[in-house]
Amino acid sequence: MKDMLGRENVIDGKTALSLLIENLRAGKPQEVNMNINEALGMVSARDVISREDLPSFARSTVDGYAVSAEDTFGATETMPAYLNLFQEILMSREADFLLPSGSASKIPTGGMLPESADAVVMFEHVQIIDEQTIEVLKPVAPGENVIQAGEDVKKGETVIRAGHRLRPQDIGACAGIGVTDMAVFKRPVVSIISTGDEIVPANVYPGPGKVRDINSYVISGMVSEAGGIPLRKGIFSDEYKTIRDVIETALTDSDAIVLSGGTSVGTKDMVARIINDIGSPGVLFHGLSLKPGKPMIGGVIKGIPVFGLPGHPAAVSICFELFISPVLQRLSGLWEKRPQLDKKTVSVKISKNISSSQGREEHVRVMIEEREGELWAVPVLGKSGLISTLVKADGTIVIPLHRNGIEAGETVDVRLF
Amino acid sequence: MKDMLGRENVIDGKTALSLLIENLRAGKPQEVNMNINEALGMVSARDVISREDLPSFARSTVDGYAVSAEDTFGATETMPAYLNLFQEILMSREADFLLPSGSASKIPTGGMLPESADAVVMFEHVQIIDEQTIEVLKPVAPGENVIQAGEDVKKGETVIRAGHRLRPQDIGACAGIGVTDMAVFKRPVVSIISTGDEIVPANVYPGPGKVRDINSYVISGMVSEAGGIPLRKGIFSDEYKTIRDVIETALTDSDAIVLSGGTSVGTKDMVARIINDIGSPGVLFHGLSLKPGKPMIGGVIKGIPVFGLPGHPAAVSICFELFISPVLQRLSGLWEKRPQLDKKTVSVKISKNISSSQGREEHVRVMIEEREGELWAVPVLGKSGLISTLVKADGTIVIPLHRNGIEAGETVDVRLF
Repeated sequence: MKDMLGRENVIDGKTALSLLIENLRAGKPQEVNMNINEALGMVSARDVISREDLPSFARSTVDGYAVSAEDTFGATETMPAYLNLFQEILMSREADFLLPSGSASKIPTGGMLPESADAVVMFEHVQIIDEQTIEVLKPVAPGENVIQAGEDVKKGETVIRAGHRLRPQDIGACAGIGVTDMAVFKRPVVSIISTGDEIVPANVYPGPGKVRDINSYVISGMVSEAGGIPLRKGIFSDEYKTIRDVIETALTDSDAIVLSGGTSVGTKDMVARIINDIGSPGVLFHGLSLKPGKPMIGGVIKGIPVFGLPGHPAAVSICFELFISPVLQRLSGLWEKRPQLDKKTVSVKISKNISSSQGREEHVRVMIEEREGELWAVPVLGKSGLISTLVKADGTIVIPLHRNGIEAGETVDVRLF
Repeated sequence: MKDMLGRENVIDGKTALSLLIENLRAGKPQEVNMNINEALGMVSARDVISREDLPSFARSTVDGYAVSAEDTFGATETMPAYLNLFQEILMSREADFLLPSGSASKIPTGGMLPESADAVVMFEHVQIIDEQTIEVLKPVAPGENVIQAGEDVKKGETVIRAGHRLRPQDIGACAGIGVTDMAVFKRPVVSIISTGDEIVPANVYPGPGKVRDINSYVISGMVSEAGGIPLRKGIFSDEYKTIRDVIETALTDSDAIVLSGGTSVGTKDMVARIINDIGSPGVLFHGLSLKPGKPMIGGVIKGIPVFGLPGHPAAVSICFELFISPVLQRLSGLWEKRPQLDKKTVSVKISKNISSSQGREEHVRVMIEEREGELWAVPVLGKSGLISTLVKADGTIVIPLHRNGIEAGETVDVRLF
């Protein structure tokens, strides 16, 4: 079949993904205000700008004596600097005095430096002479053992940029500057539609000719892991009106739509026809130079992406990683482009030769095994229609388009599940 | 100070972790039954054994004709095998007939093979002669283009082992064999206690000498990411009775306890004393050959781990990764030992020389930057007391105990946040 642009042949994955991204609805996802206690893993919708200095005062990073650094210049063990002990600085208290020249105030880690003190001498470099006097055995430079006011974060500084997935330390930084609520993007809602007259719900015994629903569970899990909200629409029979109705409803209540099943030629063509019939641009590609995953359909209707995945679990998993994950990143408002950092990969040797056809990108499931202290990737054999091969595998390796295989002992990057 | 075992010196991280693990409460975590829709990321508490074959019948993996393979042996384009068309097999229907010798039944992908058919010829290798007859142009072997009954999962087979963190495909496999509820381990509850008279809640303006709570947010996030449930107890002043009371309460309602703050010498010693006073074995180590993180305290009271973390955010993050994460894995019932697979790492070159002291393991925060298409690790400078250095960083690299630095251009493994 041809798509709306008249293309007949299969295309490569990179071109396919670009087509999808180009046709997505422009603009940002919806914002929502959230307490930082709930914001872990969410994507920041706005820059977080500090309204204050952190810390708000110069703090000691050690237990010691606050001094004016110049009073210690030239001090050595044989020629120490003598300083008069002045008022002790207590933890959590304001140091609301001026340190006189030639004096030192005892200060705990985290304590506030008094006015005119600009460094802290560690206990280890001090000898106590009597209740009024200490000897400093080693000079300190101005600023030594001190975190200056605003050194961590300055008033007016951008602490978190918009479009960033919030990690524990990001939440901590917000807490540190008193930002306890922040604007984040709503997670994208992904409708999951299982099609096929042979599919029964997981809790129903499948009679002859029927199988239980597997893919909607795999897809739901992958949507959650990708930061989306799975919306499982259920199982629908392979009829034009039924499928069209459920897609039209999903267009009103979700940000992306994933169909799985419909592996037979007639059904695949029907899903493509429905996507084209509902709205433009419709089907963007139907068929990829990819194994497994060749018969995948990708389309966009009025800015909302619609994916028609093959029925084989291994194909579902690969197509999700390659197309749905990056599209969901975009729909999550995640603008940071650091794809290589998001992959969990491990470089290991492959245990045996694998052949592949030139002209298609092949994804092979592998287990990681330790042999004599070294990690090896061992291909998991078995048809892509088997869920058990995915369960046994730890990840996948890619044999690129232009290669016709890889040899035992070659180093490969395993993309871990 | 000395710990209960009389050790005075700092120990290395590996020894410290072993001490913790050895002293944890023996036995498994509590089990709970959970619907598979909620089980993603949970740890399986029991082996999942299939009560049925998946699929329950032999299925075609292609659109074509079900045949007895021997009827096609020797077929070629010039000498095709002639087969009589028999009853068509419909999707999702029982194929409740016997395929006569010399016959073929049209079958869709996923369709059920009838008795005595053992292979499927793809449409591409068939020529239709008339309504009763087809020519097969290429022989098929027995089993070709077929998934056998039980080929994915056999009745009695273990599909998921106990002690495994459930991934999307694992949930899918359970659905496929009709297991919609399963036994999983409860997530460990981790009490988080902030100490220090200078710490105020994030939503309170810190007066002079005071700072907002940062660490309890960082630790909460890391607990969640490690699969635990954070239980934030609040901020407590550095007094023996106060800290002892909150630890004693936490021992009754959590599976692990993390204290942060108390960076001054007196407080550190007090926390160690309290841990020893409450119960055995008490403090297992106090001081590590690690930077940042040197002053960390690790102990166990009646099987429950108690961590006293330094107050510096960078130290909190490193100590969590090295000690609390692996302990939480154990407390989660995660028995799979594949630590290298759990790390998100990326191998890149380091942009500049970093010096380090021999005899301590140094963890350096780095940013990942792309320079002319290549990824580089760029050290993030700044004191470990600054939360902003953690926010700017993408991960950390390790300079091992025995090295005194690394040189610009060396390849390093960055452990990503």
